[in-house]
Amino acid sequence: MPKKSEKTVKRAAAVKNISAEKPGLALSAPGESEPLRPETQAGRVVIENVRPEIDGGRFPIKRAAGEEVCVEADIFADGHDELVCELLWRKDNETAWKRIPMRPLGNDRWRAEFTAAELGEYRYTVQGRVDCFLTWLRDLKKRLEAAQDARLELPAGAELVAAAAARAAGVQKDARRLAALARDLGTDGEPGEKAARLADPELTGLVSRWGGDDELVRYEKELEVWVDPVHARFGAWYEVFPRSCSPEPGRHGTFNDLIAQLPYISGMGFDVLYLPPIHPVGKTHRKGANNSLKAGPKDPGSPWAIGDKTGGHKAVNPELGTLEDFRRLAKAAKSHGMDIALDVALQCSPDHSWLREHPEWFRRRPDGSLRYAENPPKKYEDIYPLDFCCLDRRPLWDEVKSIFKFWLDQGVRIFRVDNPHTKPFAFWEWLIRDLRRENPDLILLAEAFTRPRVMYRLAKAGFNQSYNYFPWRNSKRELESYFTELTRTEAGEFFRPNLWVNTPDILTEYLQFGARPAFMTRYALAATLGASCGVYGPAFELCERAPREAGREEYLDSEKYEIKHWNLDRPDSIRDFIARVNRIRRENPALQNDASLRFFPLDNEQLICYGKQAGDDFVLVVVNLDPHYKQSGWVELPLAELGLSQNKRYQMHDLLTDRRYLWQGPRNYVELDPRACPAHLFRLRRYARTEQDFDYFL
Amino acid sequence: MPKKSEKTVKRAAAVKNISAEKPGLALSAPGESEPLRPETQAGRVVIENVRPEIDGGRFPIKRAAGEEVCVEADIFADGHDELVCELLWRKDNETAWKRIPMRPLGNDRWRAEFTAAELGEYRYTVQGRVDCFLTWLRDLKKRLEAAQDARLELPAGAELVAAAAARAAGVQKDARRLAALARDLGTDGEPGEKAARLADPELTGLVSRWGGDDELVRYEKELEVWVDPVHARFGAWYEVFPRSCSPEPGRHGTFNDLIAQLPYISGMGFDVLYLPPIHPVGKTHRKGANNSLKAGPKDPGSPWAIGDKTGGHKAVNPELGTLEDFRRLAKAAKSHGMDIALDVALQCSPDHSWLREHPEWFRRRPDGSLRYAENPPKKYEDIYPLDFCCLDRRPLWDEVKSIFKFWLDQGVRIFRVDNPHTKPFAFWEWLIRDLRRENPDLILLAEAFTRPRVMYRLAKAGFNQSYNYFPWRNSKRELESYFTELTRTEAGEFFRPNLWVNTPDILTEYLQFGARPAFMTRYALAATLGASCGVYGPAFELCERAPREAGREEYLDSEKYEIKHWNLDRPDSIRDFIARVNRIRRENPALQNDASLRFFPLDNEQLICYGKQAGDDFVLVVVNLDPHYKQSGWVELPLAELGLSQNKRYQMHDLLTDRRYLWQGPRNYVELDPRACPAHLFRLRRYARTEQDFDYFL
Repeated sequence: MPKKSEKTVKRAAAVKNISAEKPGLALSAPGESEPLRPETQAGRVVIENVRPEIDGGRFPIKRAAGEEVCVEADIFADGHDELVCELLWRKDNETAWKRIPMRPLGNDRWRAEFTAAELGEYRYTVQGRVDCFLTWLRDLKKRLEAAQDARLELPAGAELVAAAAARAAGVQKDARRLAALARDLGTDGEPGEKAARLADPELTGLVSRWGGDDELVRYEKELEVWVDPVHARFGAWYEVFPRSCSPEPGRHGTFNDLIAQLPYISGMGFDVLYLPPIHPVGKTHRKGANNSLKAGPKDPGSPWAIGDKTGGHKAVNPELGTLEDFRRLAKAAKSHGMDIALDVALQCSPDHSWLREHPEWFRRRPDGSLRYAENPPKKYEDIYPLDFCCLDRRPLWDEVKSIFKFWLDQGVRIFRVDNPHTKPFAFWEWLIRDLRRENPDLILLAEAFTRPRVMYRLAKAGFNQSYNYFPWRNSKRELESYFTELTRTEAGEFFRPNLWVNTPDILTEYLQFGARPAFMTRYALAATLGASCGVYGPAFELCERAPREAGREEYLDSEKYEIKHWNLDRPDSIRDFIARVNRIRRENPALQNDASLRFFPLDNEQLICYGKQAGDDFVLVVVNLDPHYKQSGWVELPLAELGLSQNKRYQMHDLLTDRRYLWQGPRNYVELDPRACPAHLFRLRRYARTEQDFDYFL
Repeated sequence: MPKKSEKTVKRAAAVKNISAEKPGLALSAPGESEPLRPETQAGRVVIENVRPEIDGGRFPIKRAAGEEVCVEADIFADGHDELVCELLWRKDNETAWKRIPMRPLGNDRWRAEFTAAELGEYRYTVQGRVDCFLTWLRDLKKRLEAAQDARLELPAGAELVAAAAARAAGVQKDARRLAALARDLGTDGEPGEKAARLADPELTGLVSRWGGDDELVRYEKELEVWVDPVHARFGAWYEVFPRSCSPEPGRHGTFNDLIAQLPYISGMGFDVLYLPPIHPVGKTHRKGANNSLKAGPKDPGSPWAIGDKTGGHKAVNPELGTLEDFRRLAKAAKSHGMDIALDVALQCSPDHSWLREHPEWFRRRPDGSLRYAENPPKKYEDIYPLDFCCLDRRPLWDEVKSIFKFWLDQGVRIFRVDNPHTKPFAFWEWLIRDLRRENPDLILLAEAFTRPRVMYRLAKAGFNQSYNYFPWRNSKRELESYFTELTRTEAGEFFRPNLWVNTPDILTEYLQFGARPAFMTRYALAATLGASCGVYGPAFELCERAPREAGREEYLDSEKYEIKHWNLDRPDSIRDFIARVNRIRRENPALQNDASLRFFPLDNEQLICYGKQAGDDFVLVVVNLDPHYKQSGWVELPLAELGLSQNKRYQMHDLLTDRRYLWQGPRNYVELDPRACPAHLFRLRRYARTEQDFDYFL
């Protein structure tokens, strides 16, 4: 691509037989009452409706490293002239734009793509101009087709090409070729013959390429892409309380105990090991079992009540081990293919040193006492919230930043942020933008179970992943409409859902009532609807489902308030099922993205059917949503869009059972018994060889 | 409403027990790395997704005088605090905003309305803030409901009310009342009793009203409304060639002849009388009958080939009469209830004086000759286009503006602009904004039969009405999808369609083949789908349908190139039908808007059904799209939405035939014979009285 040439207005102007004294600027800006600028086509081009663009460019879109950014725009001018349009992109720290020609899609819509290969920030925008030469060429062809005398038109073309030659002066090869073409068009001859010479797209492309960069109209905004590590898009998370990992019932588990349990967890194929807060737990107003107000002497308290005299958010609970132990755990996890995610809960136990050292960071009652956390009528006496809007908040904001930096320094790259929706959006935007500068591989998961607008705004503010409503979307209609919203609307550009089947706070009714098949169904859904998914274990794989109270979604004897001792070898564990699903996720790129998700018709409301694709890999998922009964129905696939023909068989290879089915045509039968396996994870194998070959399918 | 109070940060800050030295600003701006500003809730509020807003506020929305502007926005903060949100609006030339409380619609969406009563420009925006008092009050109620001891909370409320009292200092009545309430909350007592006193919404509203204007977050944009005369939204247009109005065959008609014809035209109930260009017609390269290259001595030429030695765009063709005659015509039309619309075609015949006086305003060939209009392979030798991008274009743009001003000075307020899509958008934006300043009653109809984006952009640039694809939307599916796009999307905010059934350039195949019933069908559709509609007559009401060539949509012996003599009394004229439809349009406000258009199911693809509403007036239209055969089917109406009950009959009064039908329930039968009348225009009359009354329906 040529660099933007020097202002060539004089030459361009010469083409139109007028003199140009002033530089080639655009037509008057809208609303101005002074339209006087020299002749230019630039002001004629309009750029509208650029996508993706979040809130008018106020927020970046997100990509994982290596993903494509497909940019579209309406670009048009008055009249009927031909346009040339380009996508411009660059890494944030580069100054020169890379230019990619955009393709017309019809109706003045243009498209081009670039790959966001590296971590960090990219920028993109678009530009376009009227191309006088291409317009002239198109009209010449029309004239010749209508058998009109086009002799008079040749000199006009010659002048346009001569102007291009002049612009190309710095690139001798191009300039010579263009000058020769201009001479040829300028000399007498048969227009038809000359036009024939112009049938060469390489030659006309050369003219167009030197066709007048000075008249390009640039879109007024530069749009931003945040490029995250692939794990921001794809990963299976496992939440575990290290204090429950002791092999001896009753003893407080340690990081070392968790290290011993890593083979079990990684054996299920998880990618991220998420630990609830690992900091010292406050003693004052410590909660007892089942959230009772009085803790017994052996009650460990909620790990979210952070801080005691031994330290706060930068300290490790001595009962779990030392910072050194933690680093060893992280290293061991890495050797098992897992990254550690830490929990950042920006709140304090009554014993946290900040309450004494920085009382100005907390809210007070009129009587001067600090306010503990409340969501009336609920009270959290063991937790004091921070006031991020306090008068002297800069030290608080900086201190919070230093907490992240401390753990980043320990090698942690993934953080699950507790209740981000109770802190100001401006705080998150400031914090994340700043942290990303030195740590583009940072991944923040927002635990914001709140209203949709708030959830989306946190994602716009920079959170890389988000908890979401998946736990409560159970019917086919709910799942289809929610995941269509998440993947087929603008939300897909900035909001990455992480699909949790349960959390220490959430034991859904579906799991309570559906028992073991429901746990398998929900994991199959989470792991295939979502490239990112998570379970709180071992409660999940052991199908724990006793609620604290009927009609509520809290666990009985919640691990939040007590140490558990899990029997990991229980025969009803679904660990093998999870392991199989996670292996399939790792082996099939189709399941590693959300953008390709598409639902297909299936004539039974208890069966849901959808597909995901990545390159040649197409995985079709069918899940029985009814945890009690066998269900069957007919799937309907859009054959042509999948590259299948009506007449050829294709193979559906169920990766869960390793059974292979021969299908033909758009409608095929499926049947799933939840007591055996509630899901098909079909890999589509297209018919590729002849009968002479051993395997017919690719 | 109170005026924005003085900065009351000090008092507000006191409420939170901290001192405030600095003014109350918002939290740090996004992307800034300096978050340090004094305590405020302001930075917590986010305003997103404000509607209507065209291209990020780049363009105004349009209203006709007296219409409502309904504004919605997502407004929310982090956490769970109560918000107070307001719509702000003002006339462009006023400085003070009017404030209207917004209502929450759920999911953080807020709504309020204002009326754009007068011609000209209005502005609007929205604002919101966290309301600490309302939050405190809500929480107090929750605490009391949960039987918690709320005694400690009363002083906090007292402080919030005291702060409001301080803010209200300028309005003694309010200040006294608030101070009393603060004292009451501040003294010992039973929280339940105090809360009971706060059940009065008028009292709590008072606290909230003085709750801290200094913490309001204003949306960053002011959005614009252009308010046009009602005729910009509603009117039936009639296009007529004055030169064909002579009662003597062969004689060139005059303005006086047209005056004589006004009773005929106004008798059909038209509101706007649109004349093709009335200027002198060029002689050089004048076109003959059927667009032939050679004109005979008596051929009048195309009126769009403007200008000869007697004058150009500000002159009147002497064969039509004088400028004085024109003014008389306009006056006579007014006395018949019609406004004149003039045609502005910004192009010149070869004889226009501009070609000699301003050759720089035209494009040239390399040999120096001026270029006539072409759309290769089509040639328009009798017309020279202007180059709006020429180097010294300010004099040209000014000259064009002076043409509009000239005719505005003659009292003309409506202009139909020929081919605006071949002139730069920036030109139109500049021109229209400038003309509107002194003439807010100006109405410009864009004749831009071009691509959708270009059409919409011209509307955004300021055209008040637009030709559109209606002539080619014939099937039920086409009509439903096109008019759903025009009325149910953002396009409805800036694009007002004017539905022409024909033009001198467009004789659609539907009319050619469908004969008289097709003409009735298309007028019924145009006049009810569109609040603005138009016909080119008398060709239309006389059902002229001979094409110049099979498969083309041009008239044979087009009036563009010859003088016609019409027999207005032909028995097959549909003038009576048009008159009836137009009378119904004038009598039913429902048919005078497009925004309320809604389609209803009807189980026959040849029958289309839709309704429009204005206040109590609901008109249901059923049209038979098949010009050849009788069609019947079952209409299905959403009873509840129309305020009808399943159990009560309602009356459908066909205003075209004056027949009344009793309907009951959602499904009712319709039948239309195109040879009799292809449409029902039902006025819905709801069952209102008892059997004892004379007429049961309203």
